[in-house]
Amino acid sequence: MNHKIKIEKVNKGNFDDFVQLIEKLAKYERQIPPDNQAKSRLKQDTLGKHPKIDAYLGTTNGKTATYVIFFMTYSSYLALTILYIEDIFVLEEWRRKGIGHQMFRFCVQQAKKRGCGRMEWCVYNWNQSAIKFYKKINATQSDKTYYRLNKEQVEHFSN
Amino acid sequence: MNHKIKIEKVNKGNFDDFVQLIEKLAKYERQIPPDNQAKSRLKQDTLGKHPKIDAYLGTTNGKTATYVIFFMTYSSYLALTILYIEDIFVLEEWRRKGIGHQMFRFCVQQAKKRGCGRMEWCVYNWNQSAIKFYKKINATQSDKTYYRLNKEQVEHFSN
Repeated sequence: MNHKIKIEKVNKGNFDDFVQLIEKLAKYERQIPPDNQAKSRLKQDTLGKHPKIDAYLGTTNGKTATYVIFFMTYSSYLALTILYIEDIFVLEEWRRKGIGHQMFRFCVQQAKKRGCGRMEWCVYNWNQSAIKFYKKINATQSDKTYYRLNKEQVEHFSN
Repeated sequence: MNHKIKIEKVNKGNFDDFVQLIEKLAKYERQIPPDNQAKSRLKQDTLGKHPKIDAYLGTTNGKTATYVIFFMTYSSYLALTILYIEDIFVLEEWRRKGIGHQMFRFCVQQAKKRGCGRMEWCVYNWNQSAIKFYKKINATQSDKTYYRLNKEQVEHFSN
């Protein structure tokens, strides 16, 4: 049976729940979670006067189960904004209940509402259950590879 | 010998040169170039009151040779903005003269100046000359795959 979730924008009242979920996603993705300074920047960037992200929490029977972060990017060919999903995460105990699906559908509704030219996201190649879902909904897999330079490389770039 | 380029922000005076380069990149990447409506949105999104992208042109001896578009994305773990390069393109006749390298270095300087936590970009897997450069500068290749839903899929999502 699918659990119906209630989706609400991250606010002062649920911000701590939101950060706890980010920490759990970082653990799941084997990445370094935000430290205290990062948490304080995150608060500013989510709830401040000039938010840099859109963040939503999903609860079921009053319990926090999932969150999503997205923001707008841009396609020069389309000359339209793109809704880019940065994080979409469901707590382990709430998986396989259609909850991630509801969060994804919410993102699609947001992209539609905002007149976006496309939706995009990335998935780790080891995350087979997510990939299975993206294939099922006929998402197009890109023949592009993602590259990055970290902060230290940016600061000491000598090429 | 490397050609030194002059880099300037896209403005009303060079906007048409900028659009011509985007059309040439679209052709090079075997994608659909912006139509007239898209060009007019692009003008608004580049030069309007609320720009959605940062766009710069590079000229050598007064001739337009290259452009770059970037914008800010975000990392929830770092809680810092990321400079994301959407397009970086050098006209065919100006390649292999260190021009793309200078544009890339300009992006690194911008990322540094803006206190970004990282720089990111994507490259088509067939673009071996670009990949060679990114390997040379020790950029990290991500083990992520890019997925997308196009506008029609977003509008008629029924999953």
